Amino acid sequence: MGAGVKPRVAIVGGGFGGLYAAQTLTHADLQITLLDRRNHHLFQPLLYQVATAGLSPGDIAYPIRAILRKQKNVRVLLAEVVSIDTGRRLVHLKDGELGYDFLILATGARHAYFGHEEWEINAPGLKSLEDALEIRRRILLAFEKAERATEEARRCALLTFVIVGGGPTGVELAGAIAEIARQVMVSDFRAINPREARIFLVEAGPRILSAFPEELSRAAEEALTKLCVEVKTNCPVTSVEPGRVGLGEDRYPAATVLWAAGVMASPLAKSLGVPLDRVGRVLVEPDLTIPGHPEVFVVGDLAAFTHQTGKPLPGVCPVAIQQGRHAARNIVRASAGLPLEPFRYWDKGNLATIGRAHAVADFGRFKISGFFAWLVWLFVHIFFLIGFRNRFIVLFEWAWAYFTFQRGARLITGDIDRYNRTPSL
Amino acid sequence: MGAGVKPRVAIVGGGFGGLYAAQTLTHADLQITLLDRRNHHLFQPLLYQVATAGLSPGDIAYPIRAILRKQKNVRVLLAEVVSIDTGRRLVHLKDGELGYDFLILATGARHAYFGHEEWEINAPGLKSLEDALEIRRRILLAFEKAERATEEARRCALLTFVIVGGGPTGVELAGAIAEIARQVMVSDFRAINPREARIFLVEAGPRILSAFPEELSRAAEEALTKLCVEVKTNCPVTSVEPGRVGLGEDRYPAATVLWAAGVMASPLAKSLGVPLDRVGRVLVEPDLTIPGHPEVFVVGDLAAFTHQTGKPLPGVCPVAIQQGRHAARNIVRASAGLPLEPFRYWDKGNLATIGRAHAVADFGRFKISGFFAWLVWLFVHIFFLIGFRNRFIVLFEWAWAYFTFQRGARLITGDIDRYNRTPSL
Repeated sequence: MGAGVKPRVAIVGGGFGGLYAAQTLTHADLQITLLDRRNHHLFQPLLYQVATAGLSPGDIAYPIRAILRKQKNVRVLLAEVVSIDTGRRLVHLKDGELGYDFLILATGARHAYFGHEEWEINAPGLKSLEDALEIRRRILLAFEKAERATEEARRCALLTFVIVGGGPTGVELAGAIAEIARQVMVSDFRAINPREARIFLVEAGPRILSAFPEELSRAAEEALTKLCVEVKTNCPVTSVEPGRVGLGEDRYPAATVLWAAGVMASPLAKSLGVPLDRVGRVLVEPDLTIPGHPEVFVVGDLAAFTHQTGKPLPGVCPVAIQQGRHAARNIVRASAGLPLEPFRYWDKGNLATIGRAHAVADFGRFKISGFFAWLVWLFVHIFFLIGFRNRFIVLFEWAWAYFTFQRGARLITGDIDRYNRTPSL
Repeated sequence: MGAGVKPRVAIVGGGFGGLYAAQTLTHADLQITLLDRRNHHLFQPLLYQVATAGLSPGDIAYPIRAILRKQKNVRVLLAEVVSIDTGRRLVHLKDGELGYDFLILATGARHAYFGHEEWEINAPGLKSLEDALEIRRRILLAFEKAERATEEARRCALLTFVIVGGGPTGVELAGAIAEIARQVMVSDFRAINPREARIFLVEAGPRILSAFPEELSRAAEEALTKLCVEVKTNCPVTSVEPGRVGLGEDRYPAATVLWAAGVMASPLAKSLGVPLDRVGRVLVEPDLTIPGHPEVFVVGDLAAFTHQTGKPLPGVCPVAIQQGRHAARNIVRASAGLPLEPFRYWDKGNLATIGRAHAVADFGRFKISGFFAWLVWLFVHIFFLIGFRNRFIVLFEWAWAYFTFQRGARLITGDIDRYNRTPSL
């Protein structure tokens, strides 16, 4: 780059990593381009609430260009990135290309089926707003179809929900579906009793919430059991077919199977030509760059950062936020001729919520579960949500749901004809 | 029907007509079944606000079975009705059938292209939530694509919006798009100035809002002109192609064309085997029944009621609500052995809103336009919206939009690949 020409920074992905990187560069003398194939930043920690009819898509998403409106050194482009040419320092778009001096790659991960991609159609996962609306449609449709079912066996299958994966997303989905069945819908039907719905949370490992201390796993399991969720640990899924799921040796009828069991990094990682881990994440250097390219940073769910504990940091927002900020600061250092600094994750704790007014929280020495943990969960999530409007509406929706036992977004939307095409129903 | 057996009432459609009919029968000793192919009642008068990113789908829709939860003589079924057999008194469903002693048909209307159905893909209309989200996607994507456009001509076409039809929906859409371009998005882009967007409202007839008195049409046109909407009257659309629209003899480049020009009654009317009008509406008797079948009532947009003014009543909510109630009361009379009574529409007035804080209102002798008309519009709409939650959130969204000039639901959702398939962009 010539003297007087501002270095060009390309940020790919407007999730937590990319967005916080861009915001950290507010006062930097750089030309920044943030690329995303969506027009909105998505607050993924609350996506399960869109899937379970508690919130609307607009409540947890915010237009990226509106967030960065006042930051004049950033332009935001809606574009799909297909590959990175690190040799020529080019981002290849579906319809064009973009040169860079520094690159931050923050394209995240999708859910994965590890060799059983054919399961996806019968067991959708939860990563985008579209996923959330598809899951919402399936949950609500199952009750609607059960109300009309004439055979007992079909009604039972329609009222059976299997959530695969005992991590925070699986726990949150199971708790919310139990609430819908046992509280929200309870007087809405004439032929069925929604309380008869069975909700299974199945986990291949020995306990749910395995990233949490054992005592909190136990507390979460107890809380779920109280909500009548049947928790099955050491229970690998062996098949997923329309209307049926295999658990171990047995096959159970279940119209709705939801997948919260695994992730796979964005395929963009492959185009970097550097070593990836088993789930496709980039094995980054201690300073978050990739081997041989000190101008290319990878952050968030796309990065496998193993230099702190020996195993990769978890795919959670705080890691993405801290890495995005760190990569941005390293770019400022590099453009000032200073050496890059290694990243260090500051683990502030771990939270998961279980249905109505119950959560578990792990702050190292300090572990809590129950109502107070839920209040902590609530305020942390409201705090990180972007925009006054979204905070206000989400708080209102929660208060309303808390006092009325209702949910504000019980809509089945989408192509009418899909109602009958949905394979598992 | 035998002695002691409650008469079976089937209501097809959970819009204003069907829902108010069901609610009117709260204390009637009847077995009522309300059928809809959607799980939600939709507050159509505010649908244009979902299309223009002001409201979320959940804010103007409410689950039908939740509305009727406490009314124990009604069951709600999600089902698609394919035809009516008036001879055998059967409703044929896509997957079953339902007998009735009384039937209320309230399936409404869709937008229509009158022999140019091929225009729909390039000029979508606004009747369902899916339509609204598609229109929202097109409006927001046009600005996104313009920001990336490299040729001036393409940029201009992307920033040209043509709304076809000068009725209330067309006026409301045009006003809202003008607001988005000139207020909401104004500092969000770097390469384009959204204020350069051109918004055309085209009407084949001599004036917009032709159902209103001439002075209000003029007031609306002035208000739109202040918002920089270009109103073209006596201007029939002669073609709609990808990226281009024909107006009279000329063809103009325009990436986004929206259709608010005509309606066609639900095709279910045909299966009744009775006379229909030009747009497929059932020519009902004075008591809202169909000729030869005093047990079959047709209400709302599906009915052409010509007995009051010689021409059909307009397709607006108050007509549907009053007819739904009247049909319900006639069923109560019939089941008590009393004669049916003729329907009479009580016209309480007519409202249309034009962008921010401006509306026109026609209450017969009393005609107003401007801010006060908008307040009337606002309170009437909040009042008829169902549910405390929806009222509260819609009021909050409006207040927030009013003071911040922002819009709460600026999301482009849907299949990513459709971004490039959308023909007109």
